[in-house]
Amino acid sequence: MFNKRTKIKDLLSGEQVGQEVIVMGWVRSFRNNQFVAINDGSTNNNIQIVIELGLIDEVTAKRITTGASLKVSGTLIESLGKGQKVEIKATSLEILGDSDAEKYPLQPKKHSLEFLREKAHLRFRTNTFGAVFRVRHALAFAIHQFFNERGFVYLHTPILTASDAEGAGEMFQVTTLPLNNLPKKENNEIDFSQDFFGKATNLTVSGQLEGELGAMAFSDIYTFGPTFRAENSNTTRHLAEFWMIEPEMAFYDLEDNRILAEEFIKYLIGYAMKHNREDLEFLDTRLKEEEKSLPQEKRSELGLIEKLEFVLNNNFEHISYSEAIDILLASPAYKKKKFKYEIKWGIDLQSEHERYLVEKHFKKPVIVTDYPKDIKAFYMRQNDDGKTVAAMDILAPGIGEIVGGSQREERLDKLEKRMKEMDIPADEMSWYLDTRRFGSVPHAGFGLGFERMVLFVTGMTNIRDVIPFARTPKNCEF
Amino acid sequence: MFNKRTKIKDLLSGEQVGQEVIVMGWVRSFRNNQFVAINDGSTNNNIQIVIELGLIDEVTAKRITTGASLKVSGTLIESLGKGQKVEIKATSLEILGDSDAEKYPLQPKKHSLEFLREKAHLRFRTNTFGAVFRVRHALAFAIHQFFNERGFVYLHTPILTASDAEGAGEMFQVTTLPLNNLPKKENNEIDFSQDFFGKATNLTVSGQLEGELGAMAFSDIYTFGPTFRAENSNTTRHLAEFWMIEPEMAFYDLEDNRILAEEFIKYLIGYAMKHNREDLEFLDTRLKEEEKSLPQEKRSELGLIEKLEFVLNNNFEHISYSEAIDILLASPAYKKKKFKYEIKWGIDLQSEHERYLVEKHFKKPVIVTDYPKDIKAFYMRQNDDGKTVAAMDILAPGIGEIVGGSQREERLDKLEKRMKEMDIPADEMSWYLDTRRFGSVPHAGFGLGFERMVLFVTGMTNIRDVIPFARTPKNCEF
Repeated sequence: MFNKRTKIKDLLSGEQVGQEVIVMGWVRSFRNNQFVAINDGSTNNNIQIVIELGLIDEVTAKRITTGASLKVSGTLIESLGKGQKVEIKATSLEILGDSDAEKYPLQPKKHSLEFLREKAHLRFRTNTFGAVFRVRHALAFAIHQFFNERGFVYLHTPILTASDAEGAGEMFQVTTLPLNNLPKKENNEIDFSQDFFGKATNLTVSGQLEGELGAMAFSDIYTFGPTFRAENSNTTRHLAEFWMIEPEMAFYDLEDNRILAEEFIKYLIGYAMKHNREDLEFLDTRLKEEEKSLPQEKRSELGLIEKLEFVLNNNFEHISYSEAIDILLASPAYKKKKFKYEIKWGIDLQSEHERYLVEKHFKKPVIVTDYPKDIKAFYMRQNDDGKTVAAMDILAPGIGEIVGGSQREERLDKLEKRMKEMDIPADEMSWYLDTRRFGSVPHAGFGLGFERMVLFVTGMTNIRDVIPFARTPKNCEF
Repeated sequence: MFNKRTKIKDLLSGEQVGQEVIVMGWVRSFRNNQFVAINDGSTNNNIQIVIELGLIDEVTAKRITTGASLKVSGTLIESLGKGQKVEIKATSLEILGDSDAEKYPLQPKKHSLEFLREKAHLRFRTNTFGAVFRVRHALAFAIHQFFNERGFVYLHTPILTASDAEGAGEMFQVTTLPLNNLPKKENNEIDFSQDFFGKATNLTVSGQLEGELGAMAFSDIYTFGPTFRAENSNTTRHLAEFWMIEPEMAFYDLEDNRILAEEFIKYLIGYAMKHNREDLEFLDTRLKEEEKSLPQEKRSELGLIEKLEFVLNNNFEHISYSEAIDILLASPAYKKKKFKYEIKWGIDLQSEHERYLVEKHFKKPVIVTDYPKDIKAFYMRQNDDGKTVAAMDILAPGIGEIVGGSQREERLDKLEKRMKEMDIPADEMSWYLDTRRFGSVPHAGFGLGFERMVLFVTGMTNIRDVIPFARTPKNCEF
């Protein structure tokens, strides 16, 4: 048995002062041939090891380099130095693994986020990414806890699917056919009957439709899994592979849906504020530092923690799409022709419009509901006005759309009519329509893009920096 | 706002007796024109609605069919009838959605599991699958809670990967190239530089290698995500798409790993026993019923709950691979030539061998460690004997291998030598080798097949019945 150690997070709590302890971790710095700061990832803070003269020989001392791994035994004592409450007076020190200072890419200096993206396999060892991925973990756990407390069933909807009915974007094809020698039918089309599943298959773009099947039995379900978009978007907001949370609730209307989504987002923020305070404080400082190089008007008005507290303590604004259009048309920005894209009832709101509403007009998260039916998916519930559907998007400052959802059309005749209008093949979707044939109920749901939520809570600005290994066009490393 | 109801699980607790309540759910049965049993998926138990004469007209009464959805208001009262403690004396009843009794596939009778597999979109509404998927949910939540309590970081390792180094089986290819018109290079090979990622990509078979990168910074991480095998295995134990949990721990040796894995499995079982008692009791009865048709010797020796309690209350057996071979060679079954496959040191244990060890010899879960290096992966730590590696498999009664893991080879020279022997391309794996170059530490991890764990806890016998929508050869429905 090797793992007889105490994690640094627990050591720093100070409860074991005066006791013999064992700590293991990686060297962050070594100064005066006496003080080693080591980190084990349990917290952003390091513990200081004090090495008294004569404890180690010169050869060992030279091997204490940034990134080297150590096993240290000693006594946890109160620290007389600045910057830490406790430290370890070492009685033995063993080098577990060396780290050649000439070759180790993470030198004890500030590296750019771009550089660290290239070194994604090592960036977890930095303060910034340590904090980001501990917050990501906390948010993921909070998601499961939120739904579990409310009796939702976690449903693993399929990743591989033969259905492309949602039409949410370009899809990745999945096949086991030999690409160098594709089997063909007589008409020269590819013979997918010989493929693994006997038909053409893709990676899912959403688990919603399958999620609805679960909600029609368990009342409340949620998914939390990877989803895929083969869109050639090289932006700071798009990934080809990302994680999405999609709750789906029977007996919910749009208002119920809206209330749940706001409660959910606040729960996640509150959880991180409670459990990851140190990480968020570090990220708050990091953001302030980063923004120092920006002109004043491009800096965030609120610090990261101030922003999170503000969101926690204020109701989200709720407006209809039609109201949003009116606000935009009446805005000074519109009058000064500052918008690039046209504004009139019926358009899909562009990023510049969403940002105006959220960042300039309301200065808080905004829930926009009741969009024109022609810019929304076939399954959204048709409002009585014949023009709009019971859709909702939640727009967040600095992020844009973070949640998209709707009440679903539960009336079979209206759903079938809309599918026909939109050329959705009803015969392939018979399983979906069965939920409306047998015991249909009002129901609703939404999708939260997990990485966008992590962006919002960590104050990071590029989505590639909040997922362990980003998949983007021409980039599938590690 | 529509969702002003109380879930049936809460109603059945009886705390609201005497109060006005609203319940919504789907009809399970309707008898004597007076008693409606409805279910909302929050529990396997139904609540009985009592309809007094004159409350509804004849037309409405006829629409109360199996599968129809209802909204009922009334008073929660103590029940005088058998079979339930409380019931609802209805003051109003509204039909939310009809269910044509002629067409609804789930009639109020026993359906075979095979039939329900074809109706996977509706089977959540049956008692068996209601119980199975609530248990699945509970196990998933328990997994997150177990690791969160211990300071592990949940790491989302990538699904799309250009790495095929593990060689764990046949992989699904992922591409956005037009299959009907694949771009070719001058040498007539497919030009993957034009593909979405600029190279050939696959679906992951394991997140372990990326998980190790995380462990080298956070100490303890785990993955919980979908994994894929394009193997043409049509068995009751294999899926093309399944969920796997892969913890990876720095500063762990094989013994630490073994202890954690046993603790983990027991934690999951204990959680389900505590939180899903009713579901497990239902599944226990179901299993007994199902086994009635089997000859005595093929029935389980223990009932489902007895089995789970037995596993909880006994230590797993721990033997080395070499001991396992000795036991098999000395067994009555071997002497009577009952094994189909040869037994000698060096073989990969076959299912019949594993079952003998677990079900006949030890009659409990068995951890087998220190397998011959030639039947195990390149990254497993080489033992000093030069013949074996620090691998471990956990074998469970009725399931076979449920966990596979190892201490990882942390010594760069030994790892590189082994990779060369096994033709693993070291240059493509440079990122992985960096963990051994810079601050390498003893570390270990394992993988738990989630669906196999759900099989074990629910007593179901076909893996297609414990995942919402099974993906198997020639089968990718819904």
